[in-house]
Amino acid sequence: MAEPTGRAFEVTGANLIAGRDSRAGSHTFYSVDPRTGEPGTVAFSSATREEVDAAACSAAEASKVLRALPTAKIGTLLRRIADRLDEYCPLLVEQAELDTGLSASALTREMQRTTWQFRAFAEVVESGWHLRPIIDLPDPDFIPVPRPDLRRMLAPVGPVAVFAASNVPFAFGVSGGDTASALAAGCAVVVKGHQSHPSTSELLARVISEAINADEAPKGMFSLLQGDQEDVGAALVTHPLIKAVGFTGSFRGGKALFDLAVRRSEPIVVYAEMGSTNPVFVTPAALDARAEQLGQAVADAITVGNGQFCTKPGVVAVPDGPARVRFEEALGQRLLASSIGPLLNQKIFHELESDLREIALIEGVTESDRGVDVEGALGFTPRVLVTSAGVLQEHSILREEHFGPVVILASYSNEEQLLELATAMPNSLTATIQAEDCDVSLVRDLEEIVTKKAGRIIYNGIPTGVAVTHAMQHGGPFPATTDSSSTSVGSSAIFRFLRPVTFQNYPEALLPPALQSDNPLHLERFVNGVMSADAIAKG
Amino acid sequence: MAEPTGRAFEVTGANLIAGRDSRAGSHTFYSVDPRTGEPGTVAFSSATREEVDAAACSAAEASKVLRALPTAKIGTLLRRIADRLDEYCPLLVEQAELDTGLSASALTREMQRTTWQFRAFAEVVESGWHLRPIIDLPDPDFIPVPRPDLRRMLAPVGPVAVFAASNVPFAFGVSGGDTASALAAGCAVVVKGHQSHPSTSELLARVISEAINADEAPKGMFSLLQGDQEDVGAALVTHPLIKAVGFTGSFRGGKALFDLAVRRSEPIVVYAEMGSTNPVFVTPAALDARAEQLGQAVADAITVGNGQFCTKPGVVAVPDGPARVRFEEALGQRLLASSIGPLLNQKIFHELESDLREIALIEGVTESDRGVDVEGALGFTPRVLVTSAGVLQEHSILREEHFGPVVILASYSNEEQLLELATAMPNSLTATIQAEDCDVSLVRDLEEIVTKKAGRIIYNGIPTGVAVTHAMQHGGPFPATTDSSSTSVGSSAIFRFLRPVTFQNYPEALLPPALQSDNPLHLERFVNGVMSADAIAKG
Repeated sequence: MAEPTGRAFEVTGANLIAGRDSRAGSHTFYSVDPRTGEPGTVAFSSATREEVDAAACSAAEASKVLRALPTAKIGTLLRRIADRLDEYCPLLVEQAELDTGLSASALTREMQRTTWQFRAFAEVVESGWHLRPIIDLPDPDFIPVPRPDLRRMLAPVGPVAVFAASNVPFAFGVSGGDTASALAAGCAVVVKGHQSHPSTSELLARVISEAINADEAPKGMFSLLQGDQEDVGAALVTHPLIKAVGFTGSFRGGKALFDLAVRRSEPIVVYAEMGSTNPVFVTPAALDARAEQLGQAVADAITVGNGQFCTKPGVVAVPDGPARVRFEEALGQRLLASSIGPLLNQKIFHELESDLREIALIEGVTESDRGVDVEGALGFTPRVLVTSAGVLQEHSILREEHFGPVVILASYSNEEQLLELATAMPNSLTATIQAEDCDVSLVRDLEEIVTKKAGRIIYNGIPTGVAVTHAMQHGGPFPATTDSSSTSVGSSAIFRFLRPVTFQNYPEALLPPALQSDNPLHLERFVNGVMSADAIAKG
Repeated sequence: MAEPTGRAFEVTGANLIAGRDSRAGSHTFYSVDPRTGEPGTVAFSSATREEVDAAACSAAEASKVLRALPTAKIGTLLRRIADRLDEYCPLLVEQAELDTGLSASALTREMQRTTWQFRAFAEVVESGWHLRPIIDLPDPDFIPVPRPDLRRMLAPVGPVAVFAASNVPFAFGVSGGDTASALAAGCAVVVKGHQSHPSTSELLARVISEAINADEAPKGMFSLLQGDQEDVGAALVTHPLIKAVGFTGSFRGGKALFDLAVRRSEPIVVYAEMGSTNPVFVTPAALDARAEQLGQAVADAITVGNGQFCTKPGVVAVPDGPARVRFEEALGQRLLASSIGPLLNQKIFHELESDLREIALIEGVTESDRGVDVEGALGFTPRVLVTSAGVLQEHSILREEHFGPVVILASYSNEEQLLELATAMPNSLTATIQAEDCDVSLVRDLEEIVTKKAGRIIYNGIPTGVAVTHAMQHGGPFPATTDSSSTSVGSSAIFRFLRPVTFQNYPEALLPPALQSDNPLHLERFVNGVMSADAIAKG
């Protein structure tokens, strides 16, 4: 393949199966420009059942090669993908801007984060940390029977289906964390692109495929399927060769895939991140001390990403009193100063409108502030709704996620009400506590409640912004995700797509390098209960 | 509670809820002596829905205390449970012998293993290894946005339901690995005892409760529910306060619980170990070299535990030829020399009889050997069936687990047939390769197939015997288990009942000890990408 020059890739509307264009089906769909509401000109070919099968079979074939590939080679490939994405960043940003209505600067930052993800996984893979080698040497005196030579490591689960999100087209899209972590784990990936930005999906897929091709890696390790109906995803999740699923999106979408996956004759695991309310609990002392600053921070948190982040705070619990007036004023003013873009697509737009219509019927909820009107077909004016903790507890719709630039302020009049409200909130990706030093006992009470309900607890910060690091946990108990034991962001995400295999009394020559006695990969291993990077003396 | 003297505990037939006897229901059932077929005299009270609720609520209450308990205290409790089990070992073995028909010597060994499990988990917990602390310190230059202070550790998932197995009454029973690992993780446990040995279950529960009581730990952290119908288990798995399930038993039982758990409004994870065929693949060179030894080893492997281990080899693939005659002769002779006991219960007995009746109708399957007849109502004569790889591939019942002292020998005539047979076998807990040094290429081909299908690969050994170590993997892809990413044996089992929580920008004073900068627990932590037991310099 020639080196890229200018606009090297065209959007053709094809599916990309193991590096090859495919448009077998007759059903097509079009993208919609969120600013104009106008459909695009490219007809995207929805994948057929046969195309799903071809992608899954290619992935299974590639898995055989991947399983035997040295982890260093996988690291090289991940870096090459990152390099190519960086190289084509202007082209990709230009396309994504048209598809999503997100700003070029936000998309450029998102691409930095995306390539960082690939490089961070490359580092993990090259270190071998993810293989978690554990070795127990033979012990004739072991109780109750002699212990054989046991050597355990993690191995790829097999082909992974990835469902890209609409709201973060690079970092949770075709080139997102699920794709990066699954490839890092040595799993082939079949991505179902989001119908909301098919052109961006196709370009990303072409860039990734080119990198795979240039690296002489098995082409079947990556495919993109397009589609605007549920049938493509359903066929993918129920395909017998698919062994795990990664998903980021709505509760309805994720739960539907989960239901399909657990009803297979061979059930498979679904890692669905389905968003959440991300409550913020503000203590009276915190509001007294920082009302204006908190108001501004909440305004920023509900408008960043045009209000469409899965960590957007949906409910902020604030104490009654004079500080609340200052807080709301600051929030309202900042909102008026914020400039945001349209919503991502018509579905999100209509669902948000419908949610707000339903909420408007509830007695005890008022609209306190509005941002500036947003232009365009899918422009949605930011909204601040105000209610009491009591009303919030009575109406489940007030405790649910409303995807877009909307926040509900729930006022409470004493600590008991605050703790009751925290208890009533559904499980979330995050929970945020805004407090002062004097609040130690209240914070402990809140923490006891929210630790059971969230994957990340933020102190005096805002939940939006999910750093890609080792210590990140992006995942909480259901309904935030379908598997709270894992994360979709950060290096631990790789463990989603690995499972342990133990080799018993295996001959040295046949052991995988990670488990060989002379430790050729120089890994830190857990040997007889102690971490060690040493070689094991031959018995 | 008084110190134990003699037969300190009586079997009363009650459920044991948070340390208290409970018999609210009217439905009772009786144990059956597997040697005589006679029912016992104690009427066991099946738990009612209210009793299930009481146990789950007590567990949830206890969880609050457990969450705050220092891990060192949990270690002490686990050791106390182990000490008490050792102390009462003669009483427990005597009872279990009556309940299960297993030999006193086997049961005594099993108790050694059981208390070892508790002590091994105590060691894990005391080391803090299971908390997996990961710390990323703030980084203002982080891309694309500054990184906050992020500190991640594992925390208990909440109350766990454990379903005890019939075949290993101590080590996979009320005092089994699931109970030990869940308690070690800091989770309260509600055990559903197996209806096949209710007296043993009750005694074990009384011993564990006494240890909890003596340690002044929250009584609700352990309850035992009895029952001989599906309703008790169903009520337990669908109880909203239960957050995870551990199960060891039949495919039908495990799959039924899985189906209930994933259909809850809040689905929960089920770790069901449902047994498997555990195929053994013998190369021509191995059979030539070790026919007699292999025949004896297979006879031992199918009779240990009266043939009722989940790792019993169900299918042995052997090459055609003269060595096979020697192998079968040795197997038959050893079988005649083996003395085994009756099956565990009528259900197992009738299912095995029914399986063999169905198999007897298949053309191309013959019975080659029988062991000695086993006395007693549930005595079952060990059986060796012989067929060809081709016939085995045609009839799925031949590839399934038959729980009891039965093995199917599948003969093959060339390597291609052997690999086809390996490919046709269902997923298993284990796969065993019997080979010689000259077989490197064949072993690699076999390994490529079985690595995808099993959790433990044994070279020149037998699958029975599951050492309780760090490197053990007891779990394979479905249908061997419902979650191949975890193990039910070995220290890694603790991770089933933990989930990650990240604290962002948390004040030192409020952080859990495992994440505090001065590292008061002296843990090995992953700090900024490097393992370190050092304290973190205050910024």
